[in-house]
Amino acid sequence: MNQTLLMHINNSVFLRNDSLVMIDRRFLPVKQVEVVAADYEQVAESIESMVVQGAGDIAITAGYGLYLAACQFEPEAAGNREKFMVKLYDAARRLIRTRPTGHHLAALLNKMLDKLNWEQGRWSGQLFDYVEAAVQRQQFRSEATGRAAAEVLENGDTILTHCFPGAGLLYMLAIAREQGKEISVIASETRPYLQGARLTAWAVSELDVPVTLITDNMAAYCMSEEMINKVFTAADRIAMDGTVANKVGTLQLALIARYHQVPLYVLGYGGPDRHCATAKDIPIEIRDPEEVLNFAGNRITGDKVQGFYPAFDLTPPGLVQEIFTDRGSFIPYHIHKYWSRARTDVLE
Amino acid sequence: MNQTLLMHINNSVFLRNDSLVMIDRRFLPVKQVEVVAADYEQVAESIESMVVQGAGDIAITAGYGLYLAACQFEPEAAGNREKFMVKLYDAARRLIRTRPTGHHLAALLNKMLDKLNWEQGRWSGQLFDYVEAAVQRQQFRSEATGRAAAEVLENGDTILTHCFPGAGLLYMLAIAREQGKEISVIASETRPYLQGARLTAWAVSELDVPVTLITDNMAAYCMSEEMINKVFTAADRIAMDGTVANKVGTLQLALIARYHQVPLYVLGYGGPDRHCATAKDIPIEIRDPEEVLNFAGNRITGDKVQGFYPAFDLTPPGLVQEIFTDRGSFIPYHIHKYWSRARTDVLE
Repeated sequence: MNQTLLMHINNSVFLRNDSLVMIDRRFLPVKQVEVVAADYEQVAESIESMVVQGAGDIAITAGYGLYLAACQFEPEAAGNREKFMVKLYDAARRLIRTRPTGHHLAALLNKMLDKLNWEQGRWSGQLFDYVEAAVQRQQFRSEATGRAAAEVLENGDTILTHCFPGAGLLYMLAIAREQGKEISVIASETRPYLQGARLTAWAVSELDVPVTLITDNMAAYCMSEEMINKVFTAADRIAMDGTVANKVGTLQLALIARYHQVPLYVLGYGGPDRHCATAKDIPIEIRDPEEVLNFAGNRITGDKVQGFYPAFDLTPPGLVQEIFTDRGSFIPYHIHKYWSRARTDVLE
Repeated sequence: MNQTLLMHINNSVFLRNDSLVMIDRRFLPVKQVEVVAADYEQVAESIESMVVQGAGDIAITAGYGLYLAACQFEPEAAGNREKFMVKLYDAARRLIRTRPTGHHLAALLNKMLDKLNWEQGRWSGQLFDYVEAAVQRQQFRSEATGRAAAEVLENGDTILTHCFPGAGLLYMLAIAREQGKEISVIASETRPYLQGARLTAWAVSELDVPVTLITDNMAAYCMSEEMINKVFTAADRIAMDGTVANKVGTLQLALIARYHQVPLYVLGYGGPDRHCATAKDIPIEIRDPEEVLNFAGNRITGDKVQGFYPAFDLTPPGLVQEIFTDRGSFIPYHIHKYWSRARTDVLE
């Protein structure tokens, strides 16, 4: 895959001089703006304000945030484990609260806390190693998921995608090309943050895969004109019953795809959330309505108009054809079997 | 109804000093910008570039454009009917080509040409009288359609609407309030031109009806949360088989409404197009993709990304609950009976 692109996608969050640098995704691809966070609170605020987007990258960013917190608290605690723990757990809770719907953020931070070996010392160092391993694991999972998904692509397919489904989509397209399949992409812009326009369409075009941008209300028209063969989205969280939480708009894509008999596939990366049995267990983040009432800093409606911004929605398993993960493909009703299927990575 | 609002809605296009003045709907409600067209070509360009929006208002604007053409050609022709006709028909074709999907534009202009009494002289004067009568008729139809639609509203309903469904929606809300029904509105913003935000949500808020703005990808979430009882859209053209052509996004609203068992109603004003038997006879306008690739003058994606902008879509009659017109309500499969039902207006 295009190395510069991979760098953009995979290295948009990195440490420099004891601070976390984030390439601000709200301005890509038009402007390359760095946001620098010196402590975990600034990391949390950056996650809340959408500097970082995409469930996997949000998790990694929060992981680095927890590492920054440890760097701050470790000298203060001077070896006092309880003093350190109280502050570290507070920081973790703060970071987890930033975006409630995505599974990966809380999962990574909880795991970092679980795995911390208190006897071993070098607490912040251990957390650092764990985040770096998570970055590796995410890259591995993206490639494995993309490889599994590439199997269903057929030469000449035009696929529709929504929001930014992560590097898995790019791997899928690159692998399909290696297999001699010519694929075209239609990206829905994904209001209000335009991740489909700013990240997905741009990244796909950088792979030299033909890509066409539409607004979020044009997908049904495109399907009715038989312009779309398959739909691919990611998942911010998958329940054990196969319910898929993803960027708002996914449910309506799933419904119109079903009507037009276009299969919808989900890039499920690291599988379902074991602690989440059904749709009812997935919290939906409701964001600031100002983000809907304004565009590019300008209000787009009257002063007396209210806004509403649910950031995710829930797609029932019956509307999803297949879920691709780093452990292969599952029908949604069987996604719980992910946890009993053999692992393909050796990184954890 | 709020008189200032009615003025805004009904008088956004008017003659002043032999020119046509249009309140530019691309900037409402934030800025009140006048566009002045001195001849029919400038009127045509204003229609193409979305200065005027909404099928009814586009028709009226084109009607005034034809009147301006007649004012120009009548002295040049010096009583020579053929010389005048050739130029007037050319102007009519130019104006009709501006927006192919809407029924009302071509219908009004063709009728103006049909009704012109050549023996009577005062050709431009006749055309002027006909446009003014059309303005009256449109207001009457809006009120009659709104009155028919208000019948299905129930106290406490929250309705979803898409794009700008015309004054009929505002009459419906005002009449429902007179009937003691409290109604709330959710408006989808309607990308790329944001008519839902700029016109509908603003106009509804000016009626002091509670209104909430969402992006076009949030409707299914709102329905899944049982926030919406009914959906109302307009129609740019209705075929005799009940197919509804309306702003792109209507088809997907109809599909997700059906899944969630929320009825979708259409404000059909002056009924179906008698010359249009089925969906196949309705041309769908494909607009400049730059309008999707840019927002507020700034490009929102990479340079290698293409855009696609179908401006309308087709909703099959089976997805529509009822169509309201100035002659009352019809189930979509029977909308052809509009033409045999007694007229309620006496203006034509």
